[in-house]
Amino acid sequence: MSKVRVHNFSVSLDGYATGEGLTFDAPFGHAGSRLHQWFFGTSTFRAMQGAPDGSAGVDEAFAGRWGEGIGAEIMGRGKFGPQQGPWEDEEWRGWWGENPPFHTPVFVLTHHLRPSVTMEGGTTFHFVDASPREALELAREAAGGLDVRIGGGPTTVREFLVEDLVDHLHVVVVPIVLGRGVSLWEGLEGLDERFDVESVTTPSGVTHLTFTRPKQS
Amino acid sequence: MSKVRVHNFSVSLDGYATGEGLTFDAPFGHAGSRLHQWFFGTSTFRAMQGAPDGSAGVDEAFAGRWGEGIGAEIMGRGKFGPQQGPWEDEEWRGWWGENPPFHTPVFVLTHHLRPSVTMEGGTTFHFVDASPREALELAREAAGGLDVRIGGGPTTVREFLVEDLVDHLHVVVVPIVLGRGVSLWEGLEGLDERFDVESVTTPSGVTHLTFTRPKQS
Repeated sequence: MSKVRVHNFSVSLDGYATGEGLTFDAPFGHAGSRLHQWFFGTSTFRAMQGAPDGSAGVDEAFAGRWGEGIGAEIMGRGKFGPQQGPWEDEEWRGWWGENPPFHTPVFVLTHHLRPSVTMEGGTTFHFVDASPREALELAREAAGGLDVRIGGGPTTVREFLVEDLVDHLHVVVVPIVLGRGVSLWEGLEGLDERFDVESVTTPSGVTHLTFTRPKQS
Repeated sequence: MSKVRVHNFSVSLDGYATGEGLTFDAPFGHAGSRLHQWFFGTSTFRAMQGAPDGSAGVDEAFAGRWGEGIGAEIMGRGKFGPQQGPWEDEEWRGWWGENPPFHTPVFVLTHHLRPSVTMEGGTTFHFVDASPREALELAREAAGGLDVRIGGGPTTVREFLVEDLVDHLHVVVVPIVLGRGVSLWEGLEGLDERFDVESVTTPSGVTHLTFTRPKQS
């Protein structure tokens, strides 16, 4: 069975994965870029920018796992764009330019449907009004036997964790106190009991945590 | 000037330093002993139990700094005992038996005063109704030039952090999701900006974070 995976998901010490006040200019609100500084130097991120000069150290060892074996992504509408309610127009095609880094089908969860959008490089955005389980069924079918990534934001990741649909969760704890925003952990009391948890700190100061399903005995 | 220090202060991934439902039998509520497993094997903790068989690894390297150069402790009443409101009797002398591990004056913050209690081994509990700054002044005088430790609980540590009275903060992030309890981080947005922050994970799976004041230039 294909796995459901979350990668490179940064949270603050107080558990916020995004700040308050999201806009077109500030996709993470008052958090700015602080949650993702560890990521910007990696080969994985730099390659998304068309630059071949990224790092190959411990942060990259985690960052680079993002794409391997993934056949589809599911994301919340808040990751796709800052709009809320009915689409005022359908010009918005995400934050990522003409050739988004996904290169797979991407299912955007929204109550406000619109036609699918095919981008360069193999990314197609599909807009679906579906429960986590229903969306996962669609994504699994589109992934053709490969794994499905839950891309965020925090509300979407949390919904899949609440339903116990996630097999691998990679969280990056960044040593900052955001004070407000959207929490990853809310409503997930005891989450650690369902997983084998390992952790390692890197020279950038962040702590990478992997939550993996225990092997069935 | 003597420093104000916090040591071995465990929090969950969602920032809780204690759980809900504190009683005589469960001083950390539903968190049980999960926040302090990393600590129980250390030489520092084992020595408190009168046992010479503790570990001397990386966790101990942090744990052992707890006592060095400390001349007084300040703690909240919730650390001293689970009682609330006026003292029904004055029999309660803390959780730690006749010879508590502090071996210094200890200032217990409470609105309900009672006479000081002198224990074996150099620990004296003083009960004071004071602001953080006032309590610190008393503790500094009692410490005779040595450092002052803020011993907890989370509400007390947070009050001293809000007032920017802490010079060294050692936090241990334990990879569990408690879901509810008392948060260390609430109201401390931007705390990291006032400190140099370093972090390291140990084989027990916890991440030790040190917050130290930047050197004055």
